[in-house]
Amino acid sequence: MNEVRVWAPATVANLNVGFDGLGAALAAPGERITARKTDVPGSVRIRAIHGAPDLSLDAERNVAGVAAQSLLNALGAPCGIELEIHKDVLPGSGIGSSAASAAGAVVAVDALLNGGLRPDELLPFALDGESLASGSRHADNVAPALMGGIVLCPPEGAPVSLPVPEGWHVTIVHPQVEIRTSESRKVLPQHVPLQHAVDQARWFAAFAAACHRNDGVAAAYCLEDLYIGPSRAPLIPCYPSVAAAAAQAGARAGGISGSGPSTFWITFSEADAQAVAHAAHAVLSEAGIPTNTHVTHIASRGAHVL
Amino acid sequence: MNEVRVWAPATVANLNVGFDGLGAALAAPGERITARKTDVPGSVRIRAIHGAPDLSLDAERNVAGVAAQSLLNALGAPCGIELEIHKDVLPGSGIGSSAASAAGAVVAVDALLNGGLRPDELLPFALDGESLASGSRHADNVAPALMGGIVLCPPEGAPVSLPVPEGWHVTIVHPQVEIRTSESRKVLPQHVPLQHAVDQARWFAAFAAACHRNDGVAAAYCLEDLYIGPSRAPLIPCYPSVAAAAAQAGARAGGISGSGPSTFWITFSEADAQAVAHAAHAVLSEAGIPTNTHVTHIASRGAHVL
Repeated sequence: MNEVRVWAPATVANLNVGFDGLGAALAAPGERITARKTDVPGSVRIRAIHGAPDLSLDAERNVAGVAAQSLLNALGAPCGIELEIHKDVLPGSGIGSSAASAAGAVVAVDALLNGGLRPDELLPFALDGESLASGSRHADNVAPALMGGIVLCPPEGAPVSLPVPEGWHVTIVHPQVEIRTSESRKVLPQHVPLQHAVDQARWFAAFAAACHRNDGVAAAYCLEDLYIGPSRAPLIPCYPSVAAAAAQAGARAGGISGSGPSTFWITFSEADAQAVAHAAHAVLSEAGIPTNTHVTHIASRGAHVL
Repeated sequence: MNEVRVWAPATVANLNVGFDGLGAALAAPGERITARKTDVPGSVRIRAIHGAPDLSLDAERNVAGVAAQSLLNALGAPCGIELEIHKDVLPGSGIGSSAASAAGAVVAVDALLNGGLRPDELLPFALDGESLASGSRHADNVAPALMGGIVLCPPEGAPVSLPVPEGWHVTIVHPQVEIRTSESRKVLPQHVPLQHAVDQARWFAAFAAACHRNDGVAAAYCLEDLYIGPSRAPLIPCYPSVAAAAAQAGARAGGISGSGPSTFWITFSEADAQAVAHAAHAVLSEAGIPTNTHVTHIASRGAHVL
């Protein structure tokens, strides 16, 4: 096999309840990467990037390039790799654009070289790429992009999959404004009230338990956000109006995806998910903000060969 | 039926990872309550308390009395109730003495009056009693005392049972010193660093998930305590030495039970559990502190009629 095509999902990190420790893979949008072997051992080249003109074609400055290089080296660099990337998960959208690139790249390299690595074994290499974008090795986007479903990342040890509760529909609302991750970290409090810390932990644990009981209603009910969301909401365009419109249209829970600007909204029917997309889009259009929406659900599979 | 005998378990609240939101029922020690109908409708009387001479025999000032009265009233008070209480869960031990009394009392009244209420339905009445002792309606001892097993209490909504991981043995070490709950609350920080709050939540959620996967080793590994235990440890006699001795003897996790002074230690064999009890007892004896130990496990059943 000299060429593979890979798909990698967008992801929602945090999901309100699990800052830096929780993420979910989406069925759409997804990123497609075509990877080919070349005869320059150890070299990684980005042939083209479609849909994101600002991203570097220099493999050492590109998330997919760095991730691919890391795994290629670990597998003995018997050949070179050339990548062609279709960026359907837009950079800066807050739904794991760089994680999708990193996950897709390592799955592609593993497939081309018959590495046979499991998603969790691919994680360190994908994190090498992701850390180029985020400056840190947070796995809350990359782990679900590789493993699919909902993934919980403890402070130490391997990420673990949570069962995906039945009946969840997800609406992503992406107002096309730029929020730097560094800026969205800066607004976070350095300390939080003890009661908030305690209650947030109880909601996160109750969410994990609700997923395991396959109780989608209880899981959505647990998606409280006591100190992260309130700090970041002012950075998100029209957040209070979007939240109100989403709730009015049937959203049972929701909040900021990762560090934004995208927001995510949970509903229990496709019709409600569509209604939320429509309502949120209307609010942002009225404010003059170009907005993408995605009506989707949680993907059980992570990045994989097509 | 004019008389019932009820057993109610001691409980470990917090379990390090879930302050105010987690508790586990123990197979031992347990409290026994004998309850009889009397012909004075609506009256609750404490006939005798064995093993705790300082507790009030005035039903209105006794946890079991208040809990029994609350449920008796709700069931229409067709008769009176007389209670005889064997306090094998010592007051002030930090393993849910008042919760055992409250849980035992409502189970007894429900049985005598054929109320047919489920453990979760009995909870509000037991909390009426427990709040006499603790001054608040925290369910992290009472809920497991009624429901058995490990119980997670979200900030709102009903407590939920977590599957009890196989293979856990529990050693309780009770140095007989008095720590007032109010004092142990006073040493808690009012704010905690964001990173501690975030990581503690991740450990709590990972613990819930590990219980659901029946992974006892992972569940024990998750029992981190980032801000509560370190604040309270100075109140516990010889805590660093007890912890070191317990670890040396085979404890894989452990910490302060509720607000202390008891500590709990998790091992994976009966022999290790015994060794931990022996080692901890030796440390405290050397320091001249009278100490009880209990080598036990998590009880699947909560308070029930014998």
